[in-house]
Amino acid sequence: MSENLKGLLIVISAPSGTGKTTLSHKLLKTFPSMEFSVSYTTRKPRKGEVNGRDYFFVDKETFESMIKEGDFLEWAEVYGNLYGTSKSQVMKALEKGKDILLDIDTQGALQVKKNFPEAVLIFILPPSLRELEKRLRKRGTDDEETIKKRLRIAREEIKKAFFYDYLLINDDLEVAFEKLRSIITAEKCQVKRLKSQVEKVVKDKEIVLLLKEAENG
Amino acid sequence: MSENLKGLLIVISAPSGTGKTTLSHKLLKTFPSMEFSVSYTTRKPRKGEVNGRDYFFVDKETFESMIKEGDFLEWAEVYGNLYGTSKSQVMKALEKGKDILLDIDTQGALQVKKNFPEAVLIFILPPSLRELEKRLRKRGTDDEETIKKRLRIAREEIKKAFFYDYLLINDDLEVAFEKLRSIITAEKCQVKRLKSQVEKVVKDKEIVLLLKEAENG
Repeated sequence: MSENLKGLLIVISAPSGTGKTTLSHKLLKTFPSMEFSVSYTTRKPRKGEVNGRDYFFVDKETFESMIKEGDFLEWAEVYGNLYGTSKSQVMKALEKGKDILLDIDTQGALQVKKNFPEAVLIFILPPSLRELEKRLRKRGTDDEETIKKRLRIAREEIKKAFFYDYLLINDDLEVAFEKLRSIITAEKCQVKRLKSQVEKVVKDKEIVLLLKEAENG
Repeated sequence: MSENLKGLLIVISAPSGTGKTTLSHKLLKTFPSMEFSVSYTTRKPRKGEVNGRDYFFVDKETFESMIKEGDFLEWAEVYGNLYGTSKSQVMKALEKGKDILLDIDTQGALQVKKNFPEAVLIFILPPSLRELEKRLRKRGTDDEETIKKRLRIAREEIKKAFFYDYLLINDDLEVAFEKLRSIITAEKCQVKRLKSQVEKVVKDKEIVLLLKEAENG
């Protein structure tokens, strides 16, 4: 199959501590066509952050006019700053054959599904809440209060898992990754995705004609 | 994820000479939960064939009453003999967690999809019709007339490919198999399949409760 196929928009959500970041980076290494989406934000750039690589830094007026024009696949306000994923930017990348990976919370994921139903939504569960708590403590980056807050948010996020397309448990990293990799590979074989771009997939002109004849007949 | 999950019904079709048999046997070796469906037939057993392993050998009256009772996922008459896949038998195997593989033509596959929409239909294309012809000649089992007939049937079968769920090209056997394996693995992660059997998938009771609470709320 060709490199120029229209790409996939992949949304991954998981409670903090589930291993989402590790799994996402393994995906990026495995699929050269895949890249993280670059968000728009009204937050000021931090030292070392590059416009267009880490974020697109815009002012509040620009962001609000993008909201009005319906250009956001999802957006949210976090601690007074606005963050969002531009639909036109993502669409441009998908058209070029890039697979775009969005690593966002359940609220953002459900917005994406509404605005772009072709998106592939994947939820990653921890093996248990007890194990999640253990992992958060082992990480050693959060104080007691933050850990409690993360667990409370985890419970709320898990309640949204059934709205996703795929569900997997990160019990064993290699097994979980194998499933994640398979989901991407399988989605790229779906007839509903290939139909509109059959000439790019099938190099034999005679077969293309047969397939198209059937579609129109 | 557990071994006792409800199994998948997988239907694979491909023009003769595409490599379907090789790919199917590789699948069976990779997934221990997978087995071929055993068909019912009114044909007389050949030497060495075992009832219940190769076929279920039944008389015409039995077969026709099964048709009337709507027990066939698909059936067809070939050279005066009847062949069919029993729905109740397949359902029993799926309930036990077996994945059932059906290696049938497009006509049968479309009957299965109609009678059991949860089935996963996979169509395998040859890289080109010229390559298919080359493979059929190389096999050396068919005379000129049979090869011409197989190519004619191949053209008719390819016209049905867009009615399947997944499409892949067997250009390179390893690449094609990797896609096939991924399709099965990904289907087993689909929320729509896991929802009704969440207790079997998720071992943590607290997570199960959160998921169910959301479903009912």
